[in-house]
This record gives sequence, structure tokens and C-alpha cells, in this order.
Amino acid sequence: MSSSTGGIGATEAHTRKRRTFKDCQLLDAADRLAHFRGKFSLPENTVYLDGNSLGPLPVATPARIAEVVEQEWGKDLISSWNKHGWFIMANKVASKIARIVGARAHEMVVGDSTSVNLFKVVSAAARLRPDRHVIVSERANFPTDLYMLEGLIRQLGSKYVLRLADNDGEINSSITADVAVVVLTHVSFRTGRMLDMAKYTQLAHEAGALIVWDLAHSAGAVHVDLAAAGADFAVGCGYKFLNGGPGAPAFLYVAERLQELCEQPLCGWFGHARPFAFESPYAPAEGAQRFQCGTPPILSLAALEVGVDLMLEASQEHLLAKSAALCELFITLVKQECGRWDFRLVSPRNACERGSQICLAHPESYAIVQALILENVVGDFRAPDILRFGFAPLYNSYTTVWTAVQKLQLVMREGLWDKPEYKQRSAVT
Amino acid sequence: MSSSTGGIGATEAHTRKRRTFKDCQLLDAADRLAHFRGKFSLPENTVYLDGNSLGPLPVATPARIAEVVEQEWGKDLISSWNKHGWFIMANKVASKIARIVGARAHEMVVGDSTSVNLFKVVSAAARLRPDRHVIVSERANFPTDLYMLEGLIRQLGSKYVLRLADNDGEINSSITADVAVVVLTHVSFRTGRMLDMAKYTQLAHEAGALIVWDLAHSAGAVHVDLAAAGADFAVGCGYKFLNGGPGAPAFLYVAERLQELCEQPLCGWFGHARPFAFESPYAPAEGAQRFQCGTPPILSLAALEVGVDLMLEASQEHLLAKSAALCELFITLVKQECGRWDFRLVSPRNACERGSQICLAHPESYAIVQALILENVVGDFRAPDILRFGFAPLYNSYTTVWTAVQKLQLVMREGLWDKPEYKQRSAVT
Repeated sequence: MSSSTGGIGATEAHTRKRRTFKDCQLLDAADRLAHFRGKFSLPENTVYLDGNSLGPLPVATPARIAEVVEQEWGKDLISSWNKHGWFIMANKVASKIARIVGARAHEMVVGDSTSVNLFKVVSAAARLRPDRHVIVSERANFPTDLYMLEGLIRQLGSKYVLRLADNDGEINSSITADVAVVVLTHVSFRTGRMLDMAKYTQLAHEAGALIVWDLAHSAGAVHVDLAAAGADFAVGCGYKFLNGGPGAPAFLYVAERLQELCEQPLCGWFGHARPFAFESPYAPAEGAQRFQCGTPPILSLAALEVGVDLMLEASQEHLLAKSAALCELFITLVKQECGRWDFRLVSPRNACERGSQICLAHPESYAIVQALILENVVGDFRAPDILRFGFAPLYNSYTTVWTAVQKLQLVMREGLWDKPEYKQRSAVT
Repeated sequence: MSSSTGGIGATEAHTRKRRTFKDCQLLDAADRLAHFRGKFSLPENTVYLDGNSLGPLPVATPARIAEVVEQEWGKDLISSWNKHGWFIMANKVASKIARIVGARAHEMVVGDSTSVNLFKVVSAAARLRPDRHVIVSERANFPTDLYMLEGLIRQLGSKYVLRLADNDGEINSSITADVAVVVLTHVSFRTGRMLDMAKYTQLAHEAGALIVWDLAHSAGAVHVDLAAAGADFAVGCGYKFLNGGPGAPAFLYVAERLQELCEQPLCGWFGHARPFAFESPYAPAEGAQRFQCGTPPILSLAALEVGVDLMLEASQEHLLAKSAALCELFITLVKQECGRWDFRLVSPRNACERGSQICLAHPESYAIVQALILENVVGDFRAPDILRFGFAPLYNSYTTVWTAVQKLQLVMREGLWDKPEYKQRSAVT
């Protein structure tokens, strides 16, 4: 295996002791998070390395959903808004997510989608820098982030410009004195590369700009401390590492110091200071609450809360250490077991520079991902040639990493990827 | 009982035969929708007249939710996007809602909240009339609609103006040649008054404006034919008469003739022509699909689909006739049984001019609503003095209307409303 961002040299590898299944078992035995695996209802024999696309189902979720549906909605009906705290459910979940990303409860709201939340915060940020008309982002950012920025700019008018950096160096040079807002994704969905949040935040602030962080692939997977980094705004996703279920509500962060200055255009009744006074005109609620919009999706919020609670049960320190260790083991084992095939490490070699995922490039990546899925190892494909494996530390073990690599070896050795049906790429994997 | 919009004269009432419980039983016996009551898991002995705030739980919903959670999410994980049609679930639900409101499948999308959807369509409409800068609505519109218009106008800049009509006559006179978009709610949340959709749509078009209809209190309750009315855009709510559950996804309609011209700012990846090609820049999907934004909330969509399916099982003709008959019976019985107390009919007297709800005004309305809830008759209070009763025809019977009025009589006769704790109005009922 070669690496685009710093390889393990052959010499170095030869001097290392060969890793065995037994080693992985010993690591599992010492793993203080091992019991969390039992808190997810993952199918038997499946190695699930796609929790960065859709986190698995917590065992506790079905009962909680049934309670909300059958008791709260079914029996208590409209009174549940007060009786079962539906009015404050989003705030409760928000306060829990806040603890995961280094924020305070009143700096966080939960609701809508990541895309919609991005629109809110970038709108608010742009309005705080009315004399500047450049929004900076990365060309390699997650596409929906760029689409939303394009949409916002069309709405704001032709004086606004989207400036896209093509690499890390260009991000630096793009942040000039005409920049209103910098919008960066902390961990790249495609490569797993992680940006230094404090460094880029400081760069933005030095240029007089505000910064928005997309934490979709960060929250629950890597160390995030929005307060320590001095971040202005952030958004993130509930259905990846937070295990909130398909299409779970997203979250949104606004630093306290900015809140009272902020106006955002999606100012629906749940962001009003007195939503049930039914009064006009709009009067924004205090704190981040003014970034709420319509009626919150109660069933989805209930599912998200279970996922977040599970995350909070684990020690953050153990989580982050295990995440890094799983990724490191995977790289080592791929090199050891699959070194004869042409896999290139796309993710940064240095654990401090990547999220909880490892991406490999291979010309037949799509077919290999399909063949692995048939072998019950679920990763995913990202165009043009990337195999992406997420190593969520709550439910993945060291022996599952071993199994994944053995299956990868099997797929390559037996040519299981070489099937006509894999030549046709489906819409998504 | 007096009526603000046309009363039942005392003479007329005296010549009418007195309605009895037996009459109501006979009406129930002849009701071709009577068996639908059993398809909702309403608590025993509860008369639920608040389905226009939160529709009750369909019996089939818990099993469907459990299937989506435990089988689709739990066992099939990420593969469910293809295997269980999650990608097209929103389109499937949209095509069903389309049938309820006189639209075609490709003119409807489901997702986000009513507030967010309103922002999308009014943004799109305004962009289609770039030389006009007035948005017309009603001061009595549902507040979140007005808040969203205020937010949009702040975003669009100071040349835009929100012109609010104070009564029906003023709506007419407000629609002048400088108006870009008219935003009206079909059935008023506060009074139940229903506007003539075809008439106001024509007025808007004659002035060269576009029109947006909010169907939150209409869909599933009254006759709506967006195509016949020539409507341009519409939005609506999934958790009222469609029984989709608390905070269910909302819907959005765009007439086919406008679709290819439309640009909307919340252009996330699910509205892209090729969402999983991960390509830039944004290229809008065909049809109404370009009004989608972020990842759809699968659990909430599944619940909504059950509610909509139930609605489609019933004959629309029977639904609308029964809705009108229940409202009419309620008015008649309130007059007959509670005529000695000072209830004023706030809803229009003419069934053709109102939705599936009856609103009464009374100085002690808040306390009366609370006392009724203790008697298991659930309606709601709307400031300053309105008792609001929704008569969803799928699960309400003629005898439940009888019971509701008997309980109202009891509350008034025994002074059950006159308790100190009811003097303090809670945040919402």
C-alpha cells in the first residue's frame, strides 16, 4: 500500500512485529468500551464500517420510539406538548449534543437538516459582515454545503461571490480582507482529512471574517471543542456518528457572543420569543433558540436522543483513543495482509490529521466495495475510486477490523470483485 | 348563541325539530365512514376535537414504524436507501398527498416544515416577478407564515415590502400591479373561515402576481383542487388532518407550468438532478423535486405515509360531506343545548365558507377549554377568547358531537370552568 500523504516505508514495516488475530483479541479484552457493542442491534456477523453514512440502531431506540408513538402521541395526544415535554425536547437533545462538541446548552439547537441549518448560519454570518461579499469554502467540501452556498448567494444578489479553495494552502490564501464568512467542513467526507479548527478559526478572525464549521463527520467521532477553538458557528448531522436514525434532525451552534446580534431568515414560530402568543411582528427568542424554525419532528428527535445518550455514556477520552487505534490497526493490517494489491491510502497517515475513517483508493473500488458487502463487510464507495471505511468506536472492535481486512484480502485474492454486474455503478451504495 | 357572520334566527330555530341523541345515533348508523373510527387508537371515552392541531395515531402506525426502525434501519442499515426505497419514500408520500389536493405527483414534494417550505416557494415566486417588490398577506394569517415572510424580506433587501390586509375586502384592494406574490392561508387557524381559492387566485393572476396557498388546515378536511383553482404554489402540514404524527414532514406544491422556471435558495443535495454524483455546481432536478433540500427524515415520513394512506382509503366525497354535517350538527346543538350562555359563533355560518372546524367566542374561553379537557372533550383555546373545535370526519361521529355539546352544557351549568387555576393561562393548550 502506498500513501499519498506519507507512507509507511517498507523498512519500517519489516522491523515491526506481524499483527495477529490473537493481538486483536487481546486489544478487545482490554477495551473499556467493548460492552457498548451490545447496546447496538447490529446484524450478527456484519462488520459495519459505514456508521459515518448511517449509524446503526441502538437497542434502546425501538422501545423509546414505541413509547413516544403509542403512549405520548396515541394516548396523551396534544397534551404531550406539555405533559411529555415535546416543547423542550429539541432543547434537551441540543444540550446533550453541546457536551459532545464543546458548546454550552444555550449555544446549540437541534432541528431541520444540516443543509437548512447551514443556510441559517451562513445567512446570519453574512449579515454580521455587511460590507464584505466573499464567502470562502473548499471545492472538495460536501456538495450539499456548496449547493446551499450557491443558493444563498443567488438570493443575496450578484455582489456576493463564492470563492472555492482547491487545497489547504489555497484556503489560507483565500481568506483575505474582503471575506465575510469562511465555511469549512472539519472532517472531509471523501478523504477523512481533518482540518485544524483552532488554526483556521484564527485565520478567519485575523482577516475579520466569521467562520462556520460543518461537523457532520466529526461529532461523536473526533475531538471537537468549539469553545476552545473560538468557533463562531457550526452545523452537524444526527444520523452518522450520533446514531440518530435515517434523516435524523441536524444541529446548529452559535457562539454566545454572537447570538444577540444574529438575525437569520428562516425565522419561524419556534424561534420566536413567545411562540404561542401568536403575535406579530417577529421577535427573536434569546440565545441560539432564534435559529429554530418550524414545529420540531418529535418522533425523529426521540430517536436522536437515544443515540446521543449512548454517546454520552462513554468516556470521550476512551472514544477518541479507540477511534484512532482502530484506524491505525486497519492501516497496519491492510499493509500487512493486502500489501500486494494496489491500494493507496487517501486519508492522512497522521492520526491527528484525520477523522474516524480510512479511505483507500483503488481502480476497482466500486466493485471491491460491492464484493465486500456480499461478504458482510459494509463500507462505501465514493467517486471516483475511493473505498471508505468508518471506524465508529462505540460498536466496532479490534477483531472486526481484523475480519474486515481478511475479507478484503479474500475479495482480492479470489477476484470476487470481478463480476459483470459490478461494472454498472448503482446510484449510491 | 349569536353569530358574527350570520346567525340562526330565533324564529327559524323554533320551527326546527329538536335534535336528540337518538338522531345522532341514526346518523352514525348511516355513516359510511363510521368504520374508520376503529382505525385510530384514540383513548376510550375521549372526544377528540383537536385533530386540526395534532391528528391522532392511526392503529397501523406503530407496526409500520417498528418495521422501519427494527428491520429497515436495524437490520438492513444503509442498504435500505435502495432496498426499502428510502430514496423515493418522500416522492411516494408526495404522490399520495397530491391526490388529496388536486395535484399531480410531479407537482408535489414532502419534507422539511411548513415554515421552511413557505420560504422556498415565496422565494421562488418572488424571483419569477423580479420587477415587483410587494408581498401581500393577511394580518390574521398564521403567525409563522408572517414571520417567514418578514425573514425573507429582510434577506431580499429594503426594496421589498410586506403588505398586510386586515380583512377580506382589503385582500382584494391590496393586490395591485406592484405585487409579486400573494400568500394566503386557505382556512384560518383562528376562525375556520375558508377563502375562495379560485377567486383569489384569479385576482392575483389578473394583477400579474403569483399566489401561494397555505393548506395547513385544509388538506384532508375540505375540498381542495389546486389544478382547478389554477394555483401557482402551495404548502401544507402533515400532522393535522393528515394524521402524520407530531412534527410530521410538510408538503409543497408547484404547478407544472412554473417548475422549470423556478429557482429556490434552499437547494440541497436531494433537490439536485444527480444527488449522488457529488458534482458541482448545483443543477436542479426536474419538476417539483428541485424544492427538496436535505436528507429526508425517514421515520417521520413512514408515519406520515400511514396517515395519508388512511385518508385515501376513504371516499373524498363522503369525507367532505361528513365534515360539513358534523360542523352543522355542532352549531345546531350548541344553540339548542347551550343557547342560554353567551357563545358567539366566530366561524362563518355558511358551510361553504369555512373549514372543518367551528370556533366560538366566550369571555371565559380559556377556562372552559380546560374544564372540557377534564371532561375528556379535547378542543383548544386561541387567544384572545376563542374555543376551537376541529371536526375531522375520519374518526369523529355524530354521537361524539352530541357528547361534546352535553359536556359543554355541563361545564357551563355546573360552573366547572370557574376555578382559580384556570385564571393563569398556560403557554399553550
